[in-house]
Amino acid sequence: MPTELTGEMYLGAERVLGTAGTVHGADPRTGTQLAPAYGLGTRADAARAAELAAAAFGAYRATGPKERAAFLDQVADNIDALGDTLVERVQLETGIVEARVRGELARTTNQLRLFATVVRDGSWAGARIDPALPDRTPLPRPDIRQRKVPLGPVAVFGASNFPLAFSVAGGDTAAALAAGCPVVVKAHNAHPGTSELVAGAIRAAVAEHGLPDGVFSMVYGSGAEVGIALVEHPGIKAVGFTGSRSGGTALMNAAAARPVPIPVYAEMSSINPVFLLPGALAADAAGIATGYVGSLTMGVGQLCTNPGLVFIVDGPGADAFEAAVAEQVPACPALPMLNAGIHSSYTEGVAKLGALDQVEEVAAGQDDAAIVAAGQAHVFRTTGAAFAAEPALQDEVFGSASLVVRVRDTAELLEAVAGLEGQLTATVHATGSDHAVAAELLPALEEKVGRILFNGWPTGVDVGPAMVHGGPFPATSDGRSTSVGTLAIERFLRPVAYQNVPAELLPAAIDTSNSLGLWRLVDGELGRG
Amino acid sequence: MPTELTGEMYLGAERVLGTAGTVHGADPRTGTQLAPAYGLGTRADAARAAELAAAAFGAYRATGPKERAAFLDQVADNIDALGDTLVERVQLETGIVEARVRGELARTTNQLRLFATVVRDGSWAGARIDPALPDRTPLPRPDIRQRKVPLGPVAVFGASNFPLAFSVAGGDTAAALAAGCPVVVKAHNAHPGTSELVAGAIRAAVAEHGLPDGVFSMVYGSGAEVGIALVEHPGIKAVGFTGSRSGGTALMNAAAARPVPIPVYAEMSSINPVFLLPGALAADAAGIATGYVGSLTMGVGQLCTNPGLVFIVDGPGADAFEAAVAEQVPACPALPMLNAGIHSSYTEGVAKLGALDQVEEVAAGQDDAAIVAAGQAHVFRTTGAAFAAEPALQDEVFGSASLVVRVRDTAELLEAVAGLEGQLTATVHATGSDHAVAAELLPALEEKVGRILFNGWPTGVDVGPAMVHGGPFPATSDGRSTSVGTLAIERFLRPVAYQNVPAELLPAAIDTSNSLGLWRLVDGELGRG
Repeated sequence: MPTELTGEMYLGAERVLGTAGTVHGADPRTGTQLAPAYGLGTRADAARAAELAAAAFGAYRATGPKERAAFLDQVADNIDALGDTLVERVQLETGIVEARVRGELARTTNQLRLFATVVRDGSWAGARIDPALPDRTPLPRPDIRQRKVPLGPVAVFGASNFPLAFSVAGGDTAAALAAGCPVVVKAHNAHPGTSELVAGAIRAAVAEHGLPDGVFSMVYGSGAEVGIALVEHPGIKAVGFTGSRSGGTALMNAAAARPVPIPVYAEMSSINPVFLLPGALAADAAGIATGYVGSLTMGVGQLCTNPGLVFIVDGPGADAFEAAVAEQVPACPALPMLNAGIHSSYTEGVAKLGALDQVEEVAAGQDDAAIVAAGQAHVFRTTGAAFAAEPALQDEVFGSASLVVRVRDTAELLEAVAGLEGQLTATVHATGSDHAVAAELLPALEEKVGRILFNGWPTGVDVGPAMVHGGPFPATSDGRSTSVGTLAIERFLRPVAYQNVPAELLPAAIDTSNSLGLWRLVDGELGRG
Repeated sequence: MPTELTGEMYLGAERVLGTAGTVHGADPRTGTQLAPAYGLGTRADAARAAELAAAAFGAYRATGPKERAAFLDQVADNIDALGDTLVERVQLETGIVEARVRGELARTTNQLRLFATVVRDGSWAGARIDPALPDRTPLPRPDIRQRKVPLGPVAVFGASNFPLAFSVAGGDTAAALAAGCPVVVKAHNAHPGTSELVAGAIRAAVAEHGLPDGVFSMVYGSGAEVGIALVEHPGIKAVGFTGSRSGGTALMNAAAARPVPIPVYAEMSSINPVFLLPGALAADAAGIATGYVGSLTMGVGQLCTNPGLVFIVDGPGADAFEAAVAEQVPACPALPMLNAGIHSSYTEGVAKLGALDQVEEVAAGQDDAAIVAAGQAHVFRTTGAAFAAEPALQDEVFGSASLVVRVRDTAELLEAVAGLEGQLTATVHATGSDHAVAAELLPALEEKVGRILFNGWPTGVDVGPAMVHGGPFPATSDGRSTSVGTLAIERFLRPVAYQNVPAELLPAAIDTSNSLGLWRLVDGELGRG
């Protein structure tokens, strides 16, 4: 497995140095440019990767569950084997602290292994069998069977804020490979070395398992050129993306304008409203404030589930909460943001938010002139009436900025929910005395978000069967899906029915003997027979 | 239940006569205009229906499985109770023969009852529970639960060719109501009286079950005005459509251009390739020709799964098949097509197809000057090379027209498959001696179609758990879905996760006692505990 960085892409097995300019990683703490130079790819490189993926699709989708699961496990093992080399490069390129990098690395490889168990389990095939009913009147029923098949090659766009877990071998790649889809990654330009290391680990697993070269490629390049070229290529059948609203909508538009439109799963923009109900604040306003400030500043605020919006109801609990926030935030240290671009967007967003009518600053964290891209925490406040009147108060400011909205009463709280855009998460802090209000809030939140959590904080997304990391637009492009958790495999599948197909030609998932031992819906009844 | 026709729409409980012009049903056999005049709605009427639907959503989605299932059963009973009144009106407005109308009526009400059983079963909720792991390291796992919730109000567009099964109370309406989504139907202008009768049956069920008025509305109007107004309305959250490629793509574009894009499930265009392999033709070319001609002319060729494309491999079996077709087709009687517009599109399509280079007519059916919109069968032939070179040979001609493509060998057959657009179905006729070729064909077809059937004909779509009536674009706008069969409920659902939600606030599907007795995925294991 290569650990020397070369600056080259992976077009299947080929190492190719891009010719459309170069990009370097940079240490966000110091601004220092990192070696090597990464050659940016062309539209032709994107096309080559997509063609290789299309050529590999038939053989890859034909792999059995054991073979495909073993490949995913191998990818995980190979990434783990990169060890400190990978951890150090991530730190250098992103400024993320070591403990978080190690946590993200474990999450990434555990996620690959979780998808290996999903592949082995086989329930993703959604096997259904309606046996023939030759004596049915007025017409006999033929034998009809259903299973899910992979969509085809998937273009995955690496995210800046999770250089491992939402990047080259992140959730979309794991889900697509598990579904039987080859993957072409457009690496994020902010962590090219990290991407090269991880791509090498995947490429090695492809070779070790004797899979077709096109099962995995990774290109560097501009999103507007190479990224759009991938989305437009006829060989690509679906897109996974985590990033900005403007980036995601550009991909949605390109995919919809194709002669054959394809699905885009873009996770984009969410301010993750938090509802601090009166009973909860009466019980522990200061403790809730501590949790809030911790969640707000986690990862220098650069997590998709960062709590950017907090609702409190007028009263002594609200006063106590604001006072505690005002006391705690100034102690928050400045830490480096992921890169200079994100830092400048953040400072612009903070300035714009602070300048809006009826918005006051509650508190700001520390600054640090010694850090080039220092992220300083900011908490603002406004009223429920002002929030209802000004849509710009819902614009995401990516970083540790948050807006506290003080509403008059729970009626105004429910009105505010009705006016919210789609979100990844909603958080409720409630004690028993708040449950009547919470019961009204819950169905309203279900219409707006992908995950509802109580008495905790939205940052930190567990990777398991029940997780949903998704939500209505603009949180994502497609609220019917999740980018975290095992349900994500469904993004890359579609159902096919088989009518009176001869037994010897039936795919294993729907064969007569249930040779894979799957849960199957036979004549409408679930069973393993 | 009203059986007198008034020409009015249903905006929830209100009967409103549209003011944007009028439309009449017409007997396609004679061209005679049918009373009453139907008033076409305005954009304001569409908005009113959407607003009522949005207002009804909260209460309707909160109905329990028993209540919602009983409502669906009631809709079915009410439609059945219309009996001969409905059957006669369908025949008058569409020219469909009585036996087929009665068959479609039974299919429509059975479909509603099937969705009632789906609602009661509750598996559609997709309940998953990852129990808390307080001792997990490095971080404890919270309690995470997942269920599916309805998307919101759905706009359903009635189809011309199935005035019952794909129309006001058709598959999309049944699936949406089952999922918990209010429905606004844009009735097809070609069978307004049929639509009014069925809408009255649904409206009566809404009233009988004390549901909010906005659970169901039906508007008349132009697709470009009222249809687009519905798709653009912020209260509408998904769209179901069966019709032309141009109509479907117009809705897709409108939905993608909304400030908040929504999913469109449009079933559009399919020519349903049939592969007659040499062994099958050697065994019974004449019998296969009989089956083909029967399928081609069923419903005057106006079925979505009409076999518009047939591949045969050069040889004596191919000769025998063509000869049998040439002998049988001229005996096919002319029957009235659904309406004058479809008839004129059909005759234009036939003329265009027949005029293409290297296309010859094999045979034509009878014509009948006494029928205004008489559908005459046409079978054409061409070569594999010509088919590969001319994309227009894949254009759907809606009606009983079909193209026989004679390929040199099975290699050319597989090349032709690779060049096909997305389709609803593919049909293979094969004996044991053909299975080696069929095994190569099968994975290629899986990438192109939603249903693969052997030794039968694609017309006739069974409504059950395993059916897929869908397929890659342009067969549909979204190949991840089906418009027939119980899986269709998933069109109108999305997952939501619940993290550490207090037990007393949990929805029933994911409660602590499994009070609904659902199959649930608990800690990754399926069970009913």
